[in-house]
Amino acid sequence: MVGEVKTFGSYEFTREEILAFAREFDPQPMHLDEAAGAASLLGGLAASGWHTCAVMMRLVCEGFLERSAGMGSPGVTENKWKAPVFPGDVLTLRRTVLESRTSKSRPEMGLVTFRFEMLKPDRSVALDAVCVIMIGRRNPGARLA
Amino acid sequence: MVGEVKTFGSYEFTREEILAFAREFDPQPMHLDEAAGAASLLGGLAASGWHTCAVMMRLVCEGFLERSAGMGSPGVTENKWKAPVFPGDVLTLRRTVLESRTSKSRPEMGLVTFRFEMLKPDRSVALDAVCVIMIGRRNPGARLA
Repeated sequence: MVGEVKTFGSYEFTREEILAFAREFDPQPMHLDEAAGAASLLGGLAASGWHTCAVMMRLVCEGFLERSAGMGSPGVTENKWKAPVFPGDVLTLRRTVLESRTSKSRPEMGLVTFRFEMLKPDRSVALDAVCVIMIGRRNPGARLA
Repeated sequence: MVGEVKTFGSYEFTREEILAFAREFDPQPMHLDEAAGAASLLGGLAASGWHTCAVMMRLVCEGFLERSAGMGSPGVTENKWKAPVFPGDVLTLRRTVLESRTSKSRPEMGLVTFRFEMLKPDRSVALDAVCVIMIGRRNPGARLA
């Protein structure tokens, strides 16, 4: 339902996982080393922004997509890293439904535009992403919920 | 230099890595199971789009960012998953410089807007992302290259 806001799940970013992700995918000094992180704009060793995106997707799956007929996604129209994620931070997912429509070419498919925000313990927003997800419709004739 | 196009690196998506990333961050059936992938819009077991993003970042780091004074990124303004990535696909990174300007508030920092495309072996585009990266300037008084 357009306008609906719901919060899902939680995930703790451990130091070990931050380092492991950065070593594999984003080996910039501020994601690998305390001193480099402290000297950077992040203000301390902090997770790769792509790590936060990946964990967002995990919370999306666990929170609701595993129980929906998810058909994939054409992409993200906005993806802002707004605050650093530090070791020990526990983040939650806030989902806002921005738009919901039926695919013109595939009436069995709905296209739902979500805002996904990853919230830090102080409720500041670490990541603000706008994502379209294709979701199978139980009843292609009906109006999308 | 605005308009410059360069290609960097290569990365093979193995079946094991596709499954490991999906199990940890994006456990949707089409990223975990051959039959579910084949029945999906992807047409086969395929990597999570976020896995392709993470590997893109790795090729960005290896390709040029490790030798630049990267200061982080405010985010991505466009991120389109255009073609599925299958086990055994070897992808390369194509970088186009779209814009380059000096930060108004921090003259020691440049803001460079890149288009990053992850190319499949047949040169089709798997991922098309537009990213701003903050890069330290060697000579804050000079015009950005």
